[in-house]
Amino acid sequence: MSTTAFHIAARDGRARTGTLTLPRGEIRTPAFMPVGTAATVKAMLPGSVRATGADILLGNTYHLMLRPGAERMARLGGLHRFMNWDRPILTDSGGFQVMSLADLRKLTEEGVTFKSHVDGSTHHLSPERSMEIQRLLGSDIVMAFDECPALPATEEAVAASMRLSMRWAARSREAFGDRPGHMLFGIVQGGVTRELREESAAALRGIGFDGYAIGGLAVGEGQEAMFGVLDYTPGALPDDRPRYLMGVGKPDDIVGAVQRGVDMFDCVLPSRSGRTGQALTRRGQVNLRNARHAEDPRPLDPDCTCPTCTGYSRAYLHHVVKAGEIIASMLLTWHNLHYYQELMAGLRAAIAAGRLTEFAAAFDAERLAGDLPPV
Amino acid sequence: MSTTAFHIAARDGRARTGTLTLPRGEIRTPAFMPVGTAATVKAMLPGSVRATGADILLGNTYHLMLRPGAERMARLGGLHRFMNWDRPILTDSGGFQVMSLADLRKLTEEGVTFKSHVDGSTHHLSPERSMEIQRLLGSDIVMAFDECPALPATEEAVAASMRLSMRWAARSREAFGDRPGHMLFGIVQGGVTRELREESAAALRGIGFDGYAIGGLAVGEGQEAMFGVLDYTPGALPDDRPRYLMGVGKPDDIVGAVQRGVDMFDCVLPSRSGRTGQALTRRGQVNLRNARHAEDPRPLDPDCTCPTCTGYSRAYLHHVVKAGEIIASMLLTWHNLHYYQELMAGLRAAIAAGRLTEFAAAFDAERLAGDLPPV
Repeated sequence: MSTTAFHIAARDGRARTGTLTLPRGEIRTPAFMPVGTAATVKAMLPGSVRATGADILLGNTYHLMLRPGAERMARLGGLHRFMNWDRPILTDSGGFQVMSLADLRKLTEEGVTFKSHVDGSTHHLSPERSMEIQRLLGSDIVMAFDECPALPATEEAVAASMRLSMRWAARSREAFGDRPGHMLFGIVQGGVTRELREESAAALRGIGFDGYAIGGLAVGEGQEAMFGVLDYTPGALPDDRPRYLMGVGKPDDIVGAVQRGVDMFDCVLPSRSGRTGQALTRRGQVNLRNARHAEDPRPLDPDCTCPTCTGYSRAYLHHVVKAGEIIASMLLTWHNLHYYQELMAGLRAAIAAGRLTEFAAAFDAERLAGDLPPV
Repeated sequence: MSTTAFHIAARDGRARTGTLTLPRGEIRTPAFMPVGTAATVKAMLPGSVRATGADILLGNTYHLMLRPGAERMARLGGLHRFMNWDRPILTDSGGFQVMSLADLRKLTEEGVTFKSHVDGSTHHLSPERSMEIQRLLGSDIVMAFDECPALPATEEAVAASMRLSMRWAARSREAFGDRPGHMLFGIVQGGVTRELREESAAALRGIGFDGYAIGGLAVGEGQEAMFGVLDYTPGALPDDRPRYLMGVGKPDDIVGAVQRGVDMFDCVLPSRSGRTGQALTRRGQVNLRNARHAEDPRPLDPDCTCPTCTGYSRAYLHHVVKAGEIIASMLLTWHNLHYYQELMAGLRAAIAAGRLTEFAAAFDAERLAGDLPPV
């Protein structure tokens, strides 16, 4: 008897809406997962993250294995207790961030050895160690350990990397074992080459996973190329399993990916933008550093119900951004995460009502019309 | 008919407890006012500040006149609306911070001209301009404009500075005029010299204020010298008016000052300490950067009911402090402000029960016993 389930309640074109059920809670899909890199969604308390509508967070294995360390985290009762978040957590495998953040990497068939960017100490990751770390963290949704080639890369390099990732996916599946109440997701690789993506998807289906992620996108290939991959990859994956597009993305990326059959997303954009004075709204991106906001008494978005928009003017946000106050990061991150969750709720409702095309058209029209005119 | 009132409900020795009533709300005394320098209590949302038990905030005229500017603030509806805090606000006069923060000061009988530390622009403050700025900000409790000599200073310099401040106090009173629902406080100066403090207090009584502050302390003179001044200064002030000790202080400073008849306090210590990994607890100061906390599953203070102590371990706080995460500032500031407000509530209850001496003894015993022993 499984203690996890994925239920598709409604479809609209290739898009689906439903629920992913785990012992720690239900995830409404399509879902956006805020990123809690180092056991915190930056500038937010967990209760506030939940208040935006988030059902699940993402934690980064690479960061957490280095600090505070996986064994220490286990002794402290796991990541949920540590960071005071009792709902589901998905952890990445560490593979992508080893490639993008660590120093002195040495990659072999067995795994990867690297030096910590925090203190220079030497560490090792492999499919087996990644599964162990994610178990020690207490992750609800575990990602298979994979490898991402640095771009630009030749098609041969992309193919070789993908095939290594598929061998690692099989080892991840084997090492994960049988853990009721927890899910293991495989990750489709293969760059922007259809044959490689389909070969990867077939390999993962052959191994068998609880869900399937699409990796190696949102790394600079552009939206057109990304949507190109999404035009065929979801269809190469089991229909009855959740599909997760890793590291994506901008609001319009998410709308387009949902239309192409993706169920789950994560991205640092809303939180990172919030810490640099950038707001993401239904009218596009708003730079609060801009002097045009200095005496604007209006909220960021008059129609938004978040605490930032109901409590503060653009003039205040401009002031605290310019003054470098911590509350600027707190308020803008809250708004941005709220906006993302409202967008997901809108997408879910539109799919349920069979009105996703109209929803996407209205979304584009509002976004392309741009920010409020000056007062 | 006055719309403000100070009511002393109980006394214990020289200490008093009661309420200071203003149109925007009631302030329970003895009161601690968190500092909201630049229209934010750093790393806190206003609702969270209120949740700690704060009845009133302090705003800094110097910072706010430079950014966003007093006239702009008035056009935006005043400081309360700007920062989303609808309860009372006390603003300082700008005098002290001009002396400690601004560049190229030029001091005359008329006032002080200085360059902004933000952008180098030239500004002017005088009793009349300070009253105007505090009116534009919408301050509920306005402080008279005074001057603080840089220490060390000769007794002659302290005396001359105090007498200038008394002339400025009279001009402040004149410029403030009659503003129902708002209060003007005078500020006793005179360093650590009893004759000068008594001369200053007599001058202020002659002018007549709604409340009386004791300034020029907490500038490095030490607790013994400060308590020395507090042994006679409160008694030189009208008994039926609130007494405010500016910029103080550490928890034991506050307890000693309350025992000597002080009703109001402000200090950056709890918020500033929170941003540098320091917690203030009933067992003294705890440095969360210390590696001894790295695997400590206990809360900072097992008896504290704040969200930090009920939700997070010392291990987590150590982790986020070391990682430089914003949540470290948020959680430690919240705890520190909560602790200060709990201390004030304890002092008020002890005075009401006629048990202040016992309360102070227990406070000292717990503080001097030190932090929890290692796990």
